Parts: sequence; C-alpha cells; structure tokens
Amino acid sequence: MLEQLKKRVCEANLRLVREGLVLLTWGNVSAVARKEGLIVIKPSGVAYDEMKPGQMVVVSLKTGEVVEGTLRPSSDTPTHLELYRAFSKIGAIVHSHSLYATAWAQAGREIPAFGTTHADHFYGTVPCTREMKQGEIENDYEKNTGCVIVERFKDIDPLQMPAALVAGHAPFTWGTTLEEAVTNSLVLERVARMASETLLLNPKQRPLKKTLLDKHFLRKHGSEAYYGQKKQ
Amino acid sequence: MLEQLKKRVCEANLRLVREGLVLLTWGNVSAVARKEGLIVIKPSGVAYDEMKPGQMVVVSLKTGEVVEGTLRPSSDTPTHLELYRAFSKIGAIVHSHSLYATAWAQAGREIPAFGTTHADHFYGTVPCTREMKQGEIENDYEKNTGCVIVERFKDIDPLQMPAALVAGHAPFTWGTTLEEAVTNSLVLERVARMASETLLLNPKQRPLKKTLLDKHFLRKHGSEAYYGQKKQ
Amino acid sequence: MLEQLKKRVCEANLRLVREGLVLLTWGNVSAVARKEGLIVIKPSGVAYDEMKPGQMVVVSLKTGEVVEGTLRPSSDTPTHLELYRAFSKIGAIVHSHSLYATAWAQAGREIPAFGTTHADHFYGTVPCTREMKQGEIENDYEKNTGCVIVERFKDIDPLQMPAALVAGHAPFTWGTTLEEAVTNSLVLERVARMASETLLLNPKQRPLKKTLLDKHFLRKHGSEAYYGQKKQ
Amino acid sequence: MLEQLKKRVCEANLRLVREGLVLLTWGNVSAVARKEGLIVIKPSGVAYDEMKPGQMVVVSLKTGEVVEGTLRPSSDTPTHLELYRAFSKIGAIVHSHSLYATAWAQAGREIPAFGTTHADHFYGTVPCTREMKQGEIENDYEKNTGCVIVERFKDIDPLQMPAALVAGHAPFTWGTTLEEAVTNSLVLERVARMASETLLLNPKQRPLKKTLLDKHFLRKHGSEAYYGQKKQ
Repeated sequence: MLEQLKKRVCEANLRLVREGLVLLTWGNVSAVARKEGLIVIKPSGVAYDEMKPGQMVVVSLKTGEVVEGTLRPSSDTPTHLELYRAFSKIGAIVHSHSLYATAWAQAGREIPAFGTTHADHFYGTVPCTREMKQGEIENDYEKNTGCVIVERFKDIDPLQMPAALVAGHAPFTWGTTLEEAVTNSLVLERVARMASETLLLNPKQRPLKKTLLDKHFLRKHGSEAYYGQKKQ
Repeated sequence: MLEQLKKRVCEANLRLVREGLVLLTWGNVSAVARKEGLIVIKPSGVAYDEMKPGQMVVVSLKTGEVVEGTLRPSSDTPTHLELYRAFSKIGAIVHSHSLYATAWAQAGREIPAFGTTHADHFYGTVPCTREMKQGEIENDYEKNTGCVIVERFKDIDPLQMPAALVAGHAPFTWGTTLEEAVTNSLVLERVARMASETLLLNPKQRPLKKTLLDKHFLRKHGSEAYYGQKKQ
Repeated sequence: MLEQLKKRVCEANLRLVREGLVLLTWGNVSAVARKEGLIVIKPSGVAYDEMKPGQMVVVSLKTGEVVEGTLRPSSDTPTHLELYRAFSKIGAIVHSHSLYATAWAQAGREIPAFGTTHADHFYGTVPCTREMKQGEIENDYEKNTGCVIVERFKDIDPLQMPAALVAGHAPFTWGTTLEEAVTNSLVLERVARMASETLLLNPKQRPLKKTLLDKHFLRKHGSEAYYGQKKQ
Repeated sequence: MLEQLKKRVCEANLRLVREGLVLLTWGNVSAVARKEGLIVIKPSGVAYDEMKPGQMVVVSLKTGEVVEGTLRPSSDTPTHLELYRAFSKIGAIVHSHSLYATAWAQAGREIPAFGTTHADHFYGTVPCTREMKQGEIENDYEKNTGCVIVERFKDIDPLQMPAALVAGHAPFTWGTTLEEAVTNSLVLERVARMASETLLLNPKQRPLKKTLLDKHFLRKHGSEAYYGQKKQ
C-alpha cells in the first residue's frame, strides 16, 4: 500500500544524507496520507546505504499502530503523529540533528530573524520548546516531545513557521509536501549557522524590523507572492 | 538575441553553485550589453540543475521591461538595473547569500581590510548600506535596494571596491566581466570568513596601514600592476 | 595469523580517512583477540593510500612484543595495550586527532552532555585526563598515556563512556567491536563541535538533566533498549 | 633544464589546490637546486587547471634573474630567494593564504603549541613577523617580506620551526624536501584551526609544558626519533 509515497519518503530520507544533515542512522522523514489516515515513516536504526522504499513503515495516524511493514518504525514516530494530529495542513515532517540548528536547541535559544535569508522561509523567530518535565520524559517521552512543540505553537501558524527546536534535543521541520519539509531543514541549518556567525560579529544585534520581515516572507508566500514563476 | 551572452550568464550562475556560494534557487547573476541597452539575467526561482541558457531573460536597461524570454526575470532585477545605471563601467553583477558575507551584512558591519588577501581584491573596507526605511521597503523594494547601495558609493569608485553588503540582507559584487564579478563573490566570502576568524583572535585588530593596502591593491590593479602575466 | 582481523583493522583505519577524522599518517586503530592474547594494530607512519591488511602488526597483549609483522607497530601501541588490559570488555580502540575533540583536549576541558545527540552515545560528561607529570612523559610516555586514562576511569564504566580526552593531546575511543569504536570517534567529533557551538550561544549552559540523559542513553543501550531493530 | 624538479614543483603546486589550501591563482611553491644555484618556482597568476611543468620558471638564486622560462615568475619570488639565502638547509618553500593560518597572521598573533599535534611538527610557538615599515613596503616589498621573516628567525632554527606568519599577510612554510614543505603548510593550517577552537573553549590556555613539547617533537625528529619506520 502507498507504494508511491514510500518511494518518495525513502528518497527524502536519502536526501538528508546527501545534503549533509545526518550522520550514521540519525534523522527521519515521514509523510501523511490524510485521506487514508496513515503515515509512512523511516524504519528505526537502518543504515542509509541499504535503505529501500519497501522498508518504509506504514502507521495508523489515529492509533499509532503499525499497519504494514516488517521493521520497527522510527523511535520518534509518536512525535511525528502528535504533530500531524495538531497541525492539520502539514503533509510531511523531517527530524535531523543537523549541527547548527542542534547547537541552538542545545543552547535553549530561539533563532531570531537576523536577515532576509531567514525571512524568505520562516516568518519570525524560530521557536524553541520549554524543557520537558521529569514525568514527560519518563513516560511517553516521544509523544510528549510532540506535545511540547504543539504547546509552543499555541499562537503560531505552523505553515508560516515550519520549524521548531526542541530544547536540549534538535530541530523538527515540516511542510505541505516532502520537498518543502526537507528544504526547510536545509534552510534552517543554514540560517542557524548564519545567525551564530552574526552574533559573533554583533552580540546585541536585533531581529529585522517587521516591514522587512513581511516583505520577504510575503513575496515568496501567500496570495500576493511574486517570487519564482507563476503556478500553472 | 544575445545568445552568446545568455550562455555565459547561465554558466556564471552555475559556477555559483559549484563554488558553494548558493543553496536551492538562491543567488543570481546578470551581465549588461551596454551598446544594446539590455541586460541578461537569471530567471526567478528556477532549479539550477535544470537551468538552460535559453531560459535567461533579456531586460531593457532603460525601462526594466522584459524584451525576450518566457520566464519571469529574477525578483532582484530592479536592483541589478539600478547598479548598472549608476556604475557605468561595470559589466556584470552577482548576488548571493553566501554564509560569511551574509553574516557580516546581517550584523550590519563593514568588513575591514585586515590582510593582503583582502587588499589584493578590495581597495579598503567593504561598505555596508544603511538600513532601509519603511517606505523604501513597502514600495519598489528591489529598486530601492539598488538605491541604498548607490547612495553608499557616493564617494567610492565601484571598480576599486567591487562589492557591497546590504544591511540585514546579503552581498552584491560586480566586475567589468562576468568572470571578475563571480571571482569577487568568491573572494568576498573568503575574506569575510578570514575577518571573522581574525576578530575572534584579536577583537581590537585595526585594518592594514594605507601603504600596505596600496601596495597590494595596486600591484594587481591599475596602470603599474606587476602581478600575473603581461596582457597581450 | 588473524588474517581476517587484520583485514578488518586495516579497513577501520581507512574509514578514519574517509570520514575526515585524520590527516597524513595520523590516527590508529587496533582490535584485540582476547582468546589468543594478541592485538592487531596499524603500523607506524605508513601512508594510508598504500596501506594493506598484511602490514598490520600483531602484538602480544601481555608482553607488548611484536609477534608477527615486518613493520614497527604504531608508536601509540603501549597506550592501546594499557587500555585493553584495564578495560576487559572492550574489543577495539581508535585514536585520532580529529579537530574539535582535540580542541577540547587541548583546552583541558571535559565535554558536557548538552543534548540528546551526546546522550545517545555517551552516558554523561566525556572525561579528560589530568596533565601528565614530567617523569611520566620522560619515561614510558605512551604506556603512561594509557595509565592516566585508566586512572580517570576509576569510577567510570568504559562501556557506558567509550571515549576519553587526553589533556593537551587528543581523543581515544573504544567499543566492543571495531565498528562501534570507529562510530564512537565519529560521534565524539560531532558532539564536540556541537558543544563548542552551544557554548558560543550560551556560555553558561548546564548539562542535560539526569532523567533525559538516562532516557536517551538507555533507549539505545542496556537491557531495555528500544531503538533500532530487534537483535536476532 | 631541471625538468625533473619542474615536474615536482608543478605537482606540489597542484597539491595545494587538492588539499584546499588555495583559491583561484593564490599560493606558490618553489624548490632550490643548491648545486646549480637555481630555484624553480610557479609562474605568476596562472590558472591551476592549466598549469604545466614546462611553465615553471627557473631563477638564479644569486641574482634573482630569470634563467629559463617564458612566463614571469611568482611575484613573491624575491621572498623565496631571501629565505633560501638565509636558511641554507631548506630545499623547498610553500606560500599560501590558507584560512586559519592567515587569520592568525592577520591578527598579528603567534600560534602557541597547545597540543601534541602541533608539537609533532613545530618545535614551539609558530612565530609571526613584526609589521613592515613604510619604506620596506614601498621599495623591494617582496624581498623585505623575506627579510622580516629572517629577522624574526635570528634565534630560531628553521628546520625545527619550518613555518612563519607574516603579520597582516599569510603563512610561509618550508622543509628539506617539497613533500615536507607542503605537509608543513597542511599541518600549520590544521593546528592554527585547532588553536583557534582551543582558545574559544579556554581563552587563557597556556602552551604545552617543555617536557611534552620535547617528547613529541623529538620522537619524530632528530637523532633519537622512533616514530614511523626505520629509514633505509
């Protein structure tokens, strides 16, 4: 089932490796088939150089149970499920431990929009969750990881801010498509590094003013976008 | 029309990718045909791995209108036009969001000439524009981006300083030829990184003294240059 | 003798090069054959691009004498022997001068577990030895390098902490298998870099709380691990 | 003449590119034929991807005049000559603007021996020249660049310290052979970066104690060396 989607999820996982976002078996990508109520996700701890579309695991969006697949799904599956349930318009999720975005998460700092590179993709400061409580870690840890992200997004539109840092852990990004979700991980890593380098040069730098943030985000996103070619 | 120039502009755009200066569809290169009053520029938001010379867009230097091409020109086209109009001796322009040069732009800092690597290519501190005003952002933003660069160059010879940082945005470089303009982006990125590393080691370092700056810039540029081979 | 192990030790040495952990002839990997009381180790100062399995040197675990091989063993052999003698459950050792882990060793700082990437592989702060004394350096230096590591591990389980920094020198990692030992070097380098970048963003950051450290280390290691696929 | 040496000098220049030490046409390598009183050096400003052994330029060690070759020699030739004249046992010289070593030169700081990686190759702090005076820059600049290096080495053995930083400029390294000279540039760049990262972690770190410096340098160099294989 969902063979085409498995192929695309597998390919998106492999792209993380090619783009230098993951080491070893780190990282995972999933996509959701809303109509079917299913997600397709990378298996846990499988070497990338042997990964095949047929190894992708199909999991019920509602119950979290494996519907198809002989391998265990990524141990982060409950986090993905929580995000898909809360953010009803997203179609794919990427989790990586990419170097600079992870450093920001480890520092417990949110990434300010210091420039238009950031503003072209993320509409404001990239949020970081609060630290998780002892009980949230001890029981249903991976599900609770999703919950603290959702909690942090109470007043944030996940399509305007397709990225979150989990404090002490690493980033998650998403998008309406697999391509968008992977692109957002790639851009997040770049703007995280740019922001680190910016702070070394100007430790008190303030974020972009609202007008400039709006200009860049909205010329690429939303109804009056004029960047790129006209959609057919 | 201008098929040869389209080929060279396309190739220069692809070189940005090979040199690691751009991600995704970021960055754009253009060249001007002064006699014809036309510029050739990269289309907006097209994937580099499918880019073809025939997709380059021809735009009127005077009116900014598309003269030939089925795709939209780069959204930064009005910036390029403004620079070509003000800097009458330049032949090509490169815009990238390269990591370190962008960090300096985001920090709102000009790059001092800390060493002879810098002095070999840029005759003094690489300038950074002022922040743009609300009205300049809301209306004709891309044109005004060119205007703040030109304003900053009131007393600077653009051939002796073929680079500018736009505050909160990223660098532009140029040259009399496409090759020079791309080379200047590559060198700017390198000297930006060297300058960041220099400041970590010596936060109060002063720029090179004038004699040494002159020596290095002028042994490669100007009438008494003696670096490289004799021009035929 | 031990031809199969020589092949694997040679391959593990070459993997260090491919992963960018060593320059020139730096670094060395060994493995132990406990039953035979022998170790197999890289020869000293041989170029990686000409390295052959047959050049690996077989050394007595007990006496440190060369049992087979025409080349001198790595000059760090006495360090490896000391570790194999003290840590009876490890099967392989890797020594590199990888950039960031070496910077921490040079700074004489232990690497705190700032995030779950670290906690997935190392159960707490990566320890750094004390400085070696004049007499320890002048006589039996390489053996004493092993001794100061062992001294630092008096109250640490080497299987839960498969890495050590030698002050002013560089890291050693180990594992029950060659693959684990190399992987631990690779991960150590990455978490060292992440930790450096974390401190730039938050110089006073505290290590992960114990609950989160436990959660991540123990979901991948120990009897109740649930990361990856079931072992057959 | 010296066709074999030209081939090796050309190859050493190309290795700088492969190792990532140079951009564009930056950097130059030379070797000396002491018996013949000649040096062989890279031509000035020639693209590396078209460089041929036959383009190497032969220059008189005594007079600095071109003895063979149709291209101009590197503009840094007078610096090389000065070093060969003063350091009678060196056989080859490398000049690059490699990123981290150049940052130290730009910062005007000498590189302390913070670890054994450094001590394995450089016997103590890597020296940096004083700033050059106005007259030294205006007249015979490249020759005077050599002179300030030689001046700084008044009490230093160039074979024990095969590297120098020129303040505000970049590094020079040398060796008894071409291979050694290139290796020393490669290692200098690595230890410069390690030292920068060490200072970020421990801004007050002190250099290695003398005993450890001696141990590492002398186990690889000098009459009692025991690193590597026996020389035939």
